[in-house]
Amino acid sequence: MTERIFNFSAGPAVLPEPVLKQAQRDLFALPEVGMSVLEVSHRSAAFEQIIKEAETDLRILLNIPEDYAVLFLQGGASLQFSMVPMNLLPKGKSADYILTGSWGQGAFKEAKKLGTVREACSTADTNFNRLPKPEELKLDPHAAYVHFTSNETIFGVEFQEEPPAGNVPLVCDMSSNFVSKPLDVSKYGLIYAGAQKNAGPAGATIVIIRKDLLEGVPEGLPAMLDYKNLSKSDSMYNTPPCFAIYICGLVFKWAINEVGGLEKIQALNREKAKILYSAIDSSDGYYRGHAEKDCRSLMNVTFRLPNEDLEKKFVKEATAAGLDGLKGHRSVGGLRASIYNAFPKAGVVKLVEFMGEFQKKNG
Amino acid sequence: MTERIFNFSAGPAVLPEPVLKQAQRDLFALPEVGMSVLEVSHRSAAFEQIIKEAETDLRILLNIPEDYAVLFLQGGASLQFSMVPMNLLPKGKSADYILTGSWGQGAFKEAKKLGTVREACSTADTNFNRLPKPEELKLDPHAAYVHFTSNETIFGVEFQEEPPAGNVPLVCDMSSNFVSKPLDVSKYGLIYAGAQKNAGPAGATIVIIRKDLLEGVPEGLPAMLDYKNLSKSDSMYNTPPCFAIYICGLVFKWAINEVGGLEKIQALNREKAKILYSAIDSSDGYYRGHAEKDCRSLMNVTFRLPNEDLEKKFVKEATAAGLDGLKGHRSVGGLRASIYNAFPKAGVVKLVEFMGEFQKKNG
Repeated sequence: MTERIFNFSAGPAVLPEPVLKQAQRDLFALPEVGMSVLEVSHRSAAFEQIIKEAETDLRILLNIPEDYAVLFLQGGASLQFSMVPMNLLPKGKSADYILTGSWGQGAFKEAKKLGTVREACSTADTNFNRLPKPEELKLDPHAAYVHFTSNETIFGVEFQEEPPAGNVPLVCDMSSNFVSKPLDVSKYGLIYAGAQKNAGPAGATIVIIRKDLLEGVPEGLPAMLDYKNLSKSDSMYNTPPCFAIYICGLVFKWAINEVGGLEKIQALNREKAKILYSAIDSSDGYYRGHAEKDCRSLMNVTFRLPNEDLEKKFVKEATAAGLDGLKGHRSVGGLRASIYNAFPKAGVVKLVEFMGEFQKKNG
Repeated sequence: MTERIFNFSAGPAVLPEPVLKQAQRDLFALPEVGMSVLEVSHRSAAFEQIIKEAETDLRILLNIPEDYAVLFLQGGASLQFSMVPMNLLPKGKSADYILTGSWGQGAFKEAKKLGTVREACSTADTNFNRLPKPEELKLDPHAAYVHFTSNETIFGVEFQEEPPAGNVPLVCDMSSNFVSKPLDVSKYGLIYAGAQKNAGPAGATIVIIRKDLLEGVPEGLPAMLDYKNLSKSDSMYNTPPCFAIYICGLVFKWAINEVGGLEKIQALNREKAKILYSAIDSSDGYYRGHAEKDCRSLMNVTFRLPNEDLEKKFVKEATAAGLDGLKGHRSVGGLRASIYNAFPKAGVVKLVEFMGEFQKKNG
């Protein structure tokens, strides 16, 4: 078995080792099925059980109310950028977008192609290093929905609580902090998330939608882009991404049975993030966090070094030391350590040690 | 290791055992990468090599000319039903559809929502048991494109050669016979295929498009549904379905290196199909093929028994004997044996033996 390294990638990202081991064990042939999950018909009893269990376990994990449908789709959050307005933004209405980073901007840009949208707020002026205060939000009480991005992967800012949308349905791109902490789903109209951060591998996209919103979906949408149609067919209007859903199911079981649910997961995530942010804050300014302290993400820790040459050197030497994927996104520069649910504390400890030594040598 | 059975499923379908074994060996950590393919960043050198090799190998396998782009997408053929007219059917033009089964009908229905389409021919009157003769096709020489389905999975009819489209771009849903035989790609404007029959697992969709057609893609399409945008970003506009693409890549390598290319694959497929169709034809009418002889698919062999009770009994006993997935689609009834590239000849031989014994006992 090849040795594993510490994978700080922003997504696709590290998965729980027990999940990988189970998937590996059963890859050639699922016990009592006699074929690989990669080969099993989506209409078979074996796969029906896999997708049903994945949904049931996600419902348990997030405590999803009965009046919400759960969909396993394809295309990533980027396809949801278009599907949300296609389905939820009727002609004559407009939708509000809260822009706190590149992903929110992406959602806004795609929605603009399909209907009337308003910028309710943007923190672009400070390179998305903070979140808006409630009084900064210019929300339309008649909006079809309010869209926000709960965690901006690139900038490392994370909402601590939902923006106050009143009676307007809240739509959230939760890709990068989905199932990382307890959530009151009933506050949302629609939640979507690419699986490849905390929930599973790339190739599955999860949508949780309040069922009454399905009633407003316009007629005549392409079948594969129509939430109502996809919900009616239990995510099997056509062949779903079976293997990606299977892995998501294993991750949900791991989160429930091996970690013990979202409160425990949140506690572990807080502990890991605290170790790393403390190291940044106690470095006498050698390491500088990008996000303002009260907006810091538990998932993506973004920071800079005194100059770009040192940043390049840091990435190179860290990679050589088995700390992989630390290069920051070009929009922020510097470093980014993504420490999702499955990222081990030992990796954070090792990074902090490395940071200390690097500063000593290059301070 | 759990014993494997013979999987006659129409898709997702059987994969080559060497592919499954390699994927299993490397699932926990790719050699020299130190993480699973399920975890590796799509922007990493490791994944860039995987997707590039998959494309290169597909180009070798199908001998794809340089002026064609290859895309690895999501959403299955069903999403292509909408993307094709969105991208290739401008206002003021119409497109021709040749309907030879349920999938062609599905493509036609979705295209109708988005533009002007014509039925160039339909074989619905004989429950899609045959293919149209060239003189039956009412083709519009000014059409934006002509769409056909090269193999109808449900009915088991397969085109032996392309319909005569003249100078109109030929668009083909090749999902169920893609990479099953040599192909002259230059005859096509666009080819699309869900991977989950011959090319890989569910979750990846392959599109091959002549590059000049990208120039006609209208402005303002949703980014994730815009061939031009997806092509420009080399299938990485957003996170692609990395694992599914990785498995497709292993399948292409297997097809080239272990089987020896598409002529060899076609010969093997012909041999397997001949064994099965001969058993049907020599059963004194006990087994009756659905498709007319000159339209028979090498991929999906559809046949009936004297009555439905016997068909049910056949499926039940065959399943118990390790011959799985033989129940026909409700549109045809009876039995369907899908014998894609990776389906072993031994399984066909076993099925034919079973058919003989079943007829003896129940004839």
